[in-house]
Amino acid sequence: MTEPPRAISWTGTAIQIIDQTALPTQLRVLVIDQIDDLVSAIQRLAVRGAPALGAIGGLGVVLALAQAQREGWTQATTHAAIDRIRQARPTAVNLARGVDRVRDRLADGPAAALGEALSILAENEAANRSIGAQGADWILTHVSRRPLRVLTHCNTGSLATAAYGTALGIIRALHHRDVLEIVYVDETRPLLQGSRLTAWELAADGIAHLVQPDAAAASTVLGGLVDVAVIGADRIAANGDTANKIGTLGIALACADADIPFVVAAPQTTIDLTTPTGQAITIELRDDAELLTWGDTRLAPTTTRAHNPAFDITPARLITALVTQAGVLEVAHGHRPDTTAAPGRLTVPG
Amino acid sequence: MTEPPRAISWTGTAIQIIDQTALPTQLRVLVIDQIDDLVSAIQRLAVRGAPALGAIGGLGVVLALAQAQREGWTQATTHAAIDRIRQARPTAVNLARGVDRVRDRLADGPAAALGEALSILAENEAANRSIGAQGADWILTHVSRRPLRVLTHCNTGSLATAAYGTALGIIRALHHRDVLEIVYVDETRPLLQGSRLTAWELAADGIAHLVQPDAAAASTVLGGLVDVAVIGADRIAANGDTANKIGTLGIALACADADIPFVVAAPQTTIDLTTPTGQAITIELRDDAELLTWGDTRLAPTTTRAHNPAFDITPARLITALVTQAGVLEVAHGHRPDTTAAPGRLTVPG
Repeated sequence: MTEPPRAISWTGTAIQIIDQTALPTQLRVLVIDQIDDLVSAIQRLAVRGAPALGAIGGLGVVLALAQAQREGWTQATTHAAIDRIRQARPTAVNLARGVDRVRDRLADGPAAALGEALSILAENEAANRSIGAQGADWILTHVSRRPLRVLTHCNTGSLATAAYGTALGIIRALHHRDVLEIVYVDETRPLLQGSRLTAWELAADGIAHLVQPDAAAASTVLGGLVDVAVIGADRIAANGDTANKIGTLGIALACADADIPFVVAAPQTTIDLTTPTGQAITIELRDDAELLTWGDTRLAPTTTRAHNPAFDITPARLITALVTQAGVLEVAHGHRPDTTAAPGRLTVPG
Repeated sequence: MTEPPRAISWTGTAIQIIDQTALPTQLRVLVIDQIDDLVSAIQRLAVRGAPALGAIGGLGVVLALAQAQREGWTQATTHAAIDRIRQARPTAVNLARGVDRVRDRLADGPAAALGEALSILAENEAANRSIGAQGADWILTHVSRRPLRVLTHCNTGSLATAAYGTALGIIRALHHRDVLEIVYVDETRPLLQGSRLTAWELAADGIAHLVQPDAAAASTVLGGLVDVAVIGADRIAANGDTANKIGTLGIALACADADIPFVVAAPQTTIDLTTPTGQAITIELRDDAELLTWGDTRLAPTTTRAHNPAFDITPARLITALVTQAGVLEVAHGHRPDTTAAPGRLTVPG
């Protein structure tokens, strides 16, 4: 098996990333040594994916320190730069978490900060391998058909994380166990993370797959073409409501109707116990041009405006299982992330 | 109000159409006087939409007659050409119906055939204006919020029909009654009939609208941003199951979950009583390139294949109302198109 690419690393003086906007036609590596460039890379989605953003947040603090030292920044300037990274994208809690975790170590010196940032990367990879194994175990216990046909959305692989992937980690684990028939990959408009990134990772690993329009997901599920849907998460509220790439909710509704499992895979850091329900999650509305233009081509009349939310909220009642490195919660059966918040809802899984 | 454009007409020697693949950046008119060009125009979706295809089927027979006379075809060659038109797209029943209706008049001579073909156009426009009025009446009776916020998918307007539109006809009628706030338009991948065509028609009529990714439809519905979904149909089975543009099913599932009406608008000719249920409808699988390339740009790895169904089937249980020129059937309550086929299912609408 080929090792999946490392999307994020620290060169000693800069952050190195694979530019996800150039895939699949070009494997372009960016070496970023300026905070301005990092904020821009985050905002134009050159780096994206909740766990990857956590790692980038941590390394961003290290980069701010390095640039501050080179350019003689004051402490206030340095913290303002760190805040800019922290706020580059509002919905993904991991970005802010990664920033805060490394910022908290600044008093211990640059080496401690770097160590903390690299720990985020290492811990995320370990978490993903655990998520992959436990998610595969759960699916093999709860779904009888062999080989399995899986639906996924957006990109949750080695590009979106430190390595291996979350939902795509489960898919990789199923593949390694030789029980996977095919993966249906939603193309994931408007930025095509499914067709550009997930298909690229699956092709690299030799995993059979088909890319479909996002709008086909419901009919693929109700038509009996898949046995389980496995997706990632950008933020999970205390009650289990999950913010993830726009389109996730529609898949969950289809799985509920067809009575097949809808599985969310995410590291524990994605769970935000300070957010009681999905209603408290800010949904990022992205630029019209992302949806209404393709390069220089206008796809709609010039006067037309867009509604372009980056995420949707899937209510906990639609989530069959939430897989983290700590185990599997059967959310729709009342096993919520914050079990103390709603004890009355706890029931024995069916 | 500006009159919506005539997408289909007969010049006396040729079929004239607006090339829907060139919109919204270019208003290109095609004059087609060869059956080969007509079949190609149908297959590359230069003309599309169920009722428009019915009109094109009828005019196609007239065109075959004209070309046969010019080129001295035998009767067998003429009928083979007519069959090629009839089979240019397998799912839309209207195309075959339009062909058959005019072919049945061939014995009466070319003038009778032309008259029959032009009748299809005139009847479709009359049907659409009736659908618009009755659909608007039904919605205003069943939805209390004013002004109304409507979701639609694909293009069902004057481009997709002889004139006025089906689902878009209802939207036009609501606009003319001054009760319409906004229309959420799914972009409708892969061919973008929503952002390219529906937004173009709405902009021309001065109707407020926002284009959204198809994957946003579920969250727009569950998030309380719309009061009713109104869509078209390509084929309706005797039990009410409806084939329509891929993505329709997902909207229907979201509307059922949010308990808002899901309204299907179509001329009666779209109902095919010889098709007992949706399972009997052939779903056209379209070419990979339509989804995986944009112009010369490859959107997925070169080895990646696509699952690219043009339509999905929405089961009757999810369809609140079916509006035809003959009236409104409350399908989910048991008022099915073929009430004799399943009398046990008839119940009083709630």
